[in-house]
Amino acid sequence: MIEKKIQLKKIKNGGVGSPKGFISGGQNIGMRKKKPDMGWIYSEKPAAAAGVYTTNRFQAAPLGVTRSSLAKAQTLQAILVNTVSANSCTGKEGYDNACTTRKWMAEHLGVPEHYVGVASTGVIGLQLPMDKMKKGIAHITLGEAEAPFEEAILTTDTKAKHLAVQCVIGGKTITIGGACKGSGMIHPNMATMLGFVTTDAYVAPDDLQLALKKITDRTFNRITVDGDTSTNDMVLVMANGMAENEKLTVHHPDWPVFLAGLNEVCRGLAKFIAADGEGATKLIEVQVTGAKNDQSAEAISKTIVGSSLVKTAVFGSDANWGRIICALGYSGEPFNPDKVTMALGDIVMFDKGMPVVFDEEKAKHYLDQDSVVIKAHLGEGNGEAVAWGCDLTYDYVKINASYRS
Amino acid sequence: MIEKKIQLKKIKNGGVGSPKGFISGGQNIGMRKKKPDMGWIYSEKPAAAAGVYTTNRFQAAPLGVTRSSLAKAQTLQAILVNTVSANSCTGKEGYDNACTTRKWMAEHLGVPEHYVGVASTGVIGLQLPMDKMKKGIAHITLGEAEAPFEEAILTTDTKAKHLAVQCVIGGKTITIGGACKGSGMIHPNMATMLGFVTTDAYVAPDDLQLALKKITDRTFNRITVDGDTSTNDMVLVMANGMAENEKLTVHHPDWPVFLAGLNEVCRGLAKFIAADGEGATKLIEVQVTGAKNDQSAEAISKTIVGSSLVKTAVFGSDANWGRIICALGYSGEPFNPDKVTMALGDIVMFDKGMPVVFDEEKAKHYLDQDSVVIKAHLGEGNGEAVAWGCDLTYDYVKINASYRS
Repeated sequence: MIEKKIQLKKIKNGGVGSPKGFISGGQNIGMRKKKPDMGWIYSEKPAAAAGVYTTNRFQAAPLGVTRSSLAKAQTLQAILVNTVSANSCTGKEGYDNACTTRKWMAEHLGVPEHYVGVASTGVIGLQLPMDKMKKGIAHITLGEAEAPFEEAILTTDTKAKHLAVQCVIGGKTITIGGACKGSGMIHPNMATMLGFVTTDAYVAPDDLQLALKKITDRTFNRITVDGDTSTNDMVLVMANGMAENEKLTVHHPDWPVFLAGLNEVCRGLAKFIAADGEGATKLIEVQVTGAKNDQSAEAISKTIVGSSLVKTAVFGSDANWGRIICALGYSGEPFNPDKVTMALGDIVMFDKGMPVVFDEEKAKHYLDQDSVVIKAHLGEGNGEAVAWGCDLTYDYVKINASYRS
Repeated sequence: MIEKKIQLKKIKNGGVGSPKGFISGGQNIGMRKKKPDMGWIYSEKPAAAAGVYTTNRFQAAPLGVTRSSLAKAQTLQAILVNTVSANSCTGKEGYDNACTTRKWMAEHLGVPEHYVGVASTGVIGLQLPMDKMKKGIAHITLGEAEAPFEEAILTTDTKAKHLAVQCVIGGKTITIGGACKGSGMIHPNMATMLGFVTTDAYVAPDDLQLALKKITDRTFNRITVDGDTSTNDMVLVMANGMAENEKLTVHHPDWPVFLAGLNEVCRGLAKFIAADGEGATKLIEVQVTGAKNDQSAEAISKTIVGSSLVKTAVFGSDANWGRIICALGYSGEPFNPDKVTMALGDIVMFDKGMPVVFDEEKAKHYLDQDSVVIKAHLGEGNGEAVAWGCDLTYDYVKINASYRS
């Protein structure tokens, strides 16, 4: 757990605009009534860039287009994001539209086309409204924006999600900022949701890609809201080098510091998404220790946090530990049931395969909190993992029984 | 699809008591206020028996005990079922209790102990109330019972679930009856829920086991309510031979007829469970064709029917086909997105990778029905499968936010 060892300074109200040389903003282009529906990030200097993408077999058009941008020079200078239309399952027209918006954005900002990334979120099967997109892009200013970037990318989210941290690399202070959106169709698989990370650190692009993949696997890929992996998920990171640190690679002595900073930002953003899951009232954190190995711990933690019965029990503040044990049991992972211990917070409910008498009132009180920690220890080895999710509530059903209408 | 070719006669209001020589019943032993909470099945003659059990690593005590009964002579003459306590995660005491109830039942009926199977359903972690169990067993009569077996085994189920069919084997009419319970913690994996099948057919025990496994995989293992695989799932079949047919084995010319009958009963019971899923208002059937192979079709059908977003869309009668396509995409199965076609009933919404303009009103009307069929054709091969589930509603959350209280 590298993040424990290294000092990181959190920036109050920080986000993708916090690192040096990054400008971000949002505006309404008429796809929604009032809420902003187009956002952008711009870096004064071309930035080393890396991306991870959904594993869904249907990949939305913007993912292919952004991937092709990155393939050319591992560099981005701007990212354009729209809501309402996910531009997914939209065929050749959708792909061409994504290319055209990239071109318009590049021309508007005076940067090469392949320095622009595009991302979309919203309803699957809707084409982009190209007239609105064209006008919207022409209207982008790199000064004061109509709305913050973080607000312009939301769909069913109830909160904007952003943070930034600082750390010291070879004597230079570097800043890492991030923003993300995601509330439904959230299930860990490669990259879930839209996430954007900016940093003024100077980082070798290949190593940046390695770092993003590694960190994503233990942050964004550890959250679930509903078990549904979207077609549009993508996390992009841009590193513009304006902190003037020595070039970072995996061999640099301060590489772990950078990893810790990136991890802190991605973990924070991931937890924001889990806590703001559609209809959620509580963040659930599942800590698994003593598993055969980390992979096994990860599978178990994700199974528990994804169980509808565990999620509804947490919503109802019902200490129905049998459901947690049940989920553990169907995770498909090997362990000896007689060695398993399980607790809600510090209240042990199951010890080495047997139920423990506990104070129901105390348990209910614990479950009434905004944030609930489920702990399972398997007694098999040193594997450990943490996963995050949320409770399953009436509002989840309400939101999703009428999403399009 | 063997069931299409063979004529089966359905018995009106049939159940586990329909085949010759089977008696079943239920009664209240005081674990619940009024509802019956103990049920039994008895066969006049010892019956060849087979069972399939949950794959959950935590297996409830009665499963081990029943398994040991079957291991001895592949024969059962009686089955005892209780609700309220699942006798799961109850350690050695729970196992000993299950053995003791088996012993009491055997003594009461005058049959060998290993001719008795036991099953429990209810809350995990509760020990059996042995005083009540003892009195209850002593009170069992093989004549008129206080309540039907089918009602005595229910928990959150809203309906008793039973059916029976007849077919002709070597000139003799044989009857196959079944009953089951299950509403929550339902997810296909080996055997999900409690299911009991009786038949007066004469069947070789090894072949009966083969048949049960095969049929379970395409019936009970094809349903999901919430993705949670219980610790207590078990399906038992008893064949007492009182129809006096020639002994059935896999080599008998009428073996396919028996399989078709068994399939019809298990499929019917499985669909009852899906339709009566906790809080459900609609049965969802997913038909996948044109997959690479049957296994792939099965994985895809189960992924779609298990998607929370598909389930809530069906609840809200929202023809949000993007969610179905999205679930297809994250099933993990290989296919070419550009060959995929998808329909709700007969309303095609996605054709060879592209959205189709359809009549929204007609689609809403279709989704307003009690039973909804989702069809996906992949254009990859001849693999096909059907899976069943239900919509996700406010009542699912309501029921499960306060199950224990």
